[in-house]
Amino acid sequence: MSDAPATPTETYSYLGPAGTFTELALKQVEEAQGKPWRAVNNVGEALDDVVTGRSKAAVIAIENSIDGGVSATQDALATIPGLRITGEYLVPVGFVLVARPGTRLQDVKTVAAHPVAYAQCRGWLDRNLPEHAHLPAGSNVQAATQLLERDEAGNKASVADAAIAPPTIVDHHALEVLAENIIDNDNAVTRFALVSRTTAIPAPTGADKTSLIAELPADQPGSLVELLEQFSTRGVNMSLLESRPIGDALGRHRFIIDLEGHITDERIADALLGVYRFTPRVIFLGSYPRADRQPADFDQRYADEVFVEARDWLRGLLSAEPEPDDDTDS
Amino acid sequence: MSDAPATPTETYSYLGPAGTFTELALKQVEEAQGKPWRAVNNVGEALDDVVTGRSKAAVIAIENSIDGGVSATQDALATIPGLRITGEYLVPVGFVLVARPGTRLQDVKTVAAHPVAYAQCRGWLDRNLPEHAHLPAGSNVQAATQLLERDEAGNKASVADAAIAPPTIVDHHALEVLAENIIDNDNAVTRFALVSRTTAIPAPTGADKTSLIAELPADQPGSLVELLEQFSTRGVNMSLLESRPIGDALGRHRFIIDLEGHITDERIADALLGVYRFTPRVIFLGSYPRADRQPADFDQRYADEVFVEARDWLRGLLSAEPEPDDDTDS
Amino acid sequence: MSDAPATPTETYSYLGPAGTFTELALKQVEEAQGKPWRAVNNVGEALDDVVTGRSKAAVIAIENSIDGGVSATQDALATIPGLRITGEYLVPVGFVLVARPGTRLQDVKTVAAHPVAYAQCRGWLDRNLPEHAHLPAGSNVQAATQLLERDEAGNKASVADAAIAPPTIVDHHALEVLAENIIDNDNAVTRFALVSRTTAIPAPTGADKTSLIAELPADQPGSLVELLEQFSTRGVNMSLLESRPIGDALGRHRFIIDLEGHITDERIADALLGVYRFTPRVIFLGSYPRADRQPADFDQRYADEVFVEARDWLRGLLSAEPEPDDDTDS
Amino acid sequence: MSDAPATPTETYSYLGPAGTFTELALKQVEEAQGKPWRAVNNVGEALDDVVTGRSKAAVIAIENSIDGGVSATQDALATIPGLRITGEYLVPVGFVLVARPGTRLQDVKTVAAHPVAYAQCRGWLDRNLPEHAHLPAGSNVQAATQLLERDEAGNKASVADAAIAPPTIVDHHALEVLAENIIDNDNAVTRFALVSRTTAIPAPTGADKTSLIAELPADQPGSLVELLEQFSTRGVNMSLLESRPIGDALGRHRFIIDLEGHITDERIADALLGVYRFTPRVIFLGSYPRADRQPADFDQRYADEVFVEARDWLRGLLSAEPEPDDDTDS
Repeated sequence: MSDAPATPTETYSYLGPAGTFTELALKQVEEAQGKPWRAVNNVGEALDDVVTGRSKAAVIAIENSIDGGVSATQDALATIPGLRITGEYLVPVGFVLVARPGTRLQDVKTVAAHPVAYAQCRGWLDRNLPEHAHLPAGSNVQAATQLLERDEAGNKASVADAAIAPPTIVDHHALEVLAENIIDNDNAVTRFALVSRTTAIPAPTGADKTSLIAELPADQPGSLVELLEQFSTRGVNMSLLESRPIGDALGRHRFIIDLEGHITDERIADALLGVYRFTPRVIFLGSYPRADRQPADFDQRYADEVFVEARDWLRGLLSAEPEPDDDTDS
Repeated sequence: MSDAPATPTETYSYLGPAGTFTELALKQVEEAQGKPWRAVNNVGEALDDVVTGRSKAAVIAIENSIDGGVSATQDALATIPGLRITGEYLVPVGFVLVARPGTRLQDVKTVAAHPVAYAQCRGWLDRNLPEHAHLPAGSNVQAATQLLERDEAGNKASVADAAIAPPTIVDHHALEVLAENIIDNDNAVTRFALVSRTTAIPAPTGADKTSLIAELPADQPGSLVELLEQFSTRGVNMSLLESRPIGDALGRHRFIIDLEGHITDERIADALLGVYRFTPRVIFLGSYPRADRQPADFDQRYADEVFVEARDWLRGLLSAEPEPDDDTDS
Repeated sequence: MSDAPATPTETYSYLGPAGTFTELALKQVEEAQGKPWRAVNNVGEALDDVVTGRSKAAVIAIENSIDGGVSATQDALATIPGLRITGEYLVPVGFVLVARPGTRLQDVKTVAAHPVAYAQCRGWLDRNLPEHAHLPAGSNVQAATQLLERDEAGNKASVADAAIAPPTIVDHHALEVLAENIIDNDNAVTRFALVSRTTAIPAPTGADKTSLIAELPADQPGSLVELLEQFSTRGVNMSLLESRPIGDALGRHRFIIDLEGHITDERIADALLGVYRFTPRVIFLGSYPRADRQPADFDQRYADEVFVEARDWLRGLLSAEPEPDDDTDS
Repeated sequence: MSDAPATPTETYSYLGPAGTFTELALKQVEEAQGKPWRAVNNVGEALDDVVTGRSKAAVIAIENSIDGGVSATQDALATIPGLRITGEYLVPVGFVLVARPGTRLQDVKTVAAHPVAYAQCRGWLDRNLPEHAHLPAGSNVQAATQLLERDEAGNKASVADAAIAPPTIVDHHALEVLAENIIDNDNAVTRFALVSRTTAIPAPTGADKTSLIAELPADQPGSLVELLEQFSTRGVNMSLLESRPIGDALGRHRFIIDLEGHITDERIADALLGVYRFTPRVIFLGSYPRADRQPADFDQRYADEVFVEARDWLRGLLSAEPEPDDDTDS
């Protein structure tokens, strides 16, 4: 730290290459505009950039991802200390089928795609290309761009005839769109987080989320219920609950939890106290504005003023002066 | 208050006459020794003395009473504002059968007794006086002393031949004990409270109780469970739970609750906050040393330091300095 | 049974004498009209009549009683095996102040009354007879009738000038009403139960109650919550929850519980199963029509058909034929 | 069904190619030995084989997979009707680093691997090949075999120098192992399920699991707690709880749950009834022997006989004969 660079980095890392949904998310990050962006190969690299100080922050997929990496993200956030989420961003997921210029839909025999994307477009593919084969790929964008590549000997780099890719692919590459909007579920959306090492918490906006990761203290019936009651008894809604194996033994899990509200909301702060008492193995990942800007919906029984009144009442009980000694000079 | 008497009262009220179990309890109250005692007819009068300032404090039965008055006590504490319990005292309940001097056991036809005392000695009476009749009385001591009274015309004041009374009766009255230890349950004990208007809370001793009275906010399934979870989720044991009709409509109840612990214990304070948030219709009756001096038994998960550590953790999260502006002079 | 008396008893026991609220309750018991009634001195005697077969059934106060006996009732039902409640009856509690003919209100110095009745009329008495003294009595009706009695020497049997009594007292005794409606709370009502040894359960009416008494298996935080969750998780409302000391040690309690619903309602039956599994020390006191005839109010999530559908689903899962052996003659 | 093939299929589908961990799992499936196996490209294809009847059953990864497919599996089981799990199998995950014969470890610049496998070997790679680049692959086995492939022009099919692969890879391919046991976590294991369309449930063994998928009826605080209480209140332990987005809207989840016990265990059957009543949107995926053969650990409070006794008690209460009519010929 004494050796900090004269000019701290302003770089933002993201899962590349250009054209991924992650890049679309990064385009929504206001403070990243006009700053250097760094495309990396996976979530681990992106977080590594943050941890080592190579980047100021990273955008990573954390829910319902097509680009992959969600489990990896959760595991990384659980095991790499010092990371914080300061914002979330939503990107609608849409897919097009792309091919080398001149390819006709009826000529497509093999479709390259990340398995998750493939599964999401399976219905359309079965109807329109009933005979197709699937060539699994590690990345849709990569699979798509490989369609155009040839090695030094001039051979095609891919045996696929077409690839599933995000619509933005054509902004970067000379691919032809054979079909648009081929995803089976029109509402598909991916949630991204902006992750950095800051410990400053964004100010509450009234429409916030709080993320944490907690391990159960013991693996017995009711232990998870006891954890979740910390929220339900304070009227705190969870917008996400994921379990991830801790990895030391099958059956041991940690829980990734998103709460509706901000750490400065009384009910959230009180719930965090309850969680910490229940299990000190809890990681606070941050409070930050919700991407959808929807104000937290909660019963007024759990409003800030109810907590304040209760504390005032308790303080009043405790502050009574000691009983005057009636025996004095009697 | 500006008009307070030059010498505030030092009197202690109790359910008399001399010889009652309540008097035995008062004899245990250290600060009452050597002060004036005032015998009253019922719990209402005793509390009235406290409220009006006629007495400094009153000793009243609050659980498993033979002298009666428990429900009345609970209702009075719930409806008379400003009362506090500052101590509890246990009196083992024992009964003797007394009569006018010269009476033989086999001559006893009618036994005077408060119905509760009568029920507690029923087994012994049925075995030893199978033909007896019961003459219900409002007070055992009163019934016993009436055995000795005659009116101006010289007639016996009571048609009873014997009475059930506490063993101390013979310290005050020229009655003869026909049989000792006639209560069916050897472990019978009555719990008494010292009630005053002080707001000062006795210092914690490590073996304390906290008493409160709470009304449910709504009469629906789970509402009482929600109240009681305020205690169970903080590892707080209840040593008493009584329900009393509120009186405005059948089916509406308030709950009289004794907790193991002191308001200055973190888990108790936190539970009180939870109760107040759940229902502001809660009355704090006091924290005071337990009569049995048994330290509160609770899981170390709910120890004071666990609460302190959780608060420190939360404070640490909240106190992070704002993110330094990396853009400065770059 | 083979040895049954030629004419089984048809007698109904009740807390007498004539004129008590209990007698008013008995007047509501349809099947008791035209049958012999037997006035007894207390709840223990009434239940004894039932147990010994001296009476067919007894009417006893079980909630908010003026005639006393509620705790005694609950303890008796908990400890005397084989008793069942088959009906409940409500009696509005009203009081009059009565005296010997010719007495004027302003002449009243001493008022005889059961302490509970006295407490309920205290406000009126303090306003109208500020100087009065209270003569505690074991029974209001008895205290009132004593006003008229004289002993063989012609002396008044009571030193009281007036007594608090139910309005019906004047149907039986030549007393004069000095003031009507002197109770402070206009809604006061007492609940009575018809208790017998039958094991037949009255048919469901849609507006029923189920009464039980349960002991907690262990005295630890959350144990009562676990009991009560048997009801809340099935949408079952409690109309009564009382705790009574078991009597073997201070702090050990049993719970008297009234549920809204009938044992033949699926949610009640399922809750009873849950209670029995939680604590086999449970006594079923009966299912019977509610006195107020209000249909049970419960969430349709817990309707009978929901239970039936769930069982059908489970049965379907379990009834699958064993997998045919695909290897047969292949 | 009337049109069933003369010889029903005996084929087992699995995620190929030969050498995958899924193949290792299939080798554990007793009834599959000696039957035709069919390698497919992803979980969707495997389940499709089962649904269409092309295969009798499929082996698919369902927890902590390296071969990928866990989320896809869960989503498929939730949306494809008629599937059942009849067995589970554990495969320890071990990785070797393989390359074309003659390659030296120090020459490796680029490592091909599925991102999940890559993440699991990252520690070893960073220590031993600090300068390496990662080439993401859709399948480890595929990436490894590509090391040996050349296209028609004789060019290498892969730009990678080495690949991460399961140890069995060398049984099928002429690759050279550069390093063994390169996974960072020695306890890594993947859980596989045998999935078919049978509705017959394997007999209980005393060491069983029950799998189900449930949707919450409403997205509000406490709704998940209410679901999970169906298990905790019956002493049923969960060995797995995963949430998956339902897909119709962000924030709506279904839960994948594994319970310790068999549907014929009373506590499991009762919990299933409770779940179905709470949410009819529940899918029973099967009860089957646990791979680890560990008997279910549960409190004897929830033993079968406790349920049986409770039912006997309730049945006894309900079976009382109607009260004999005492009025007959009196």
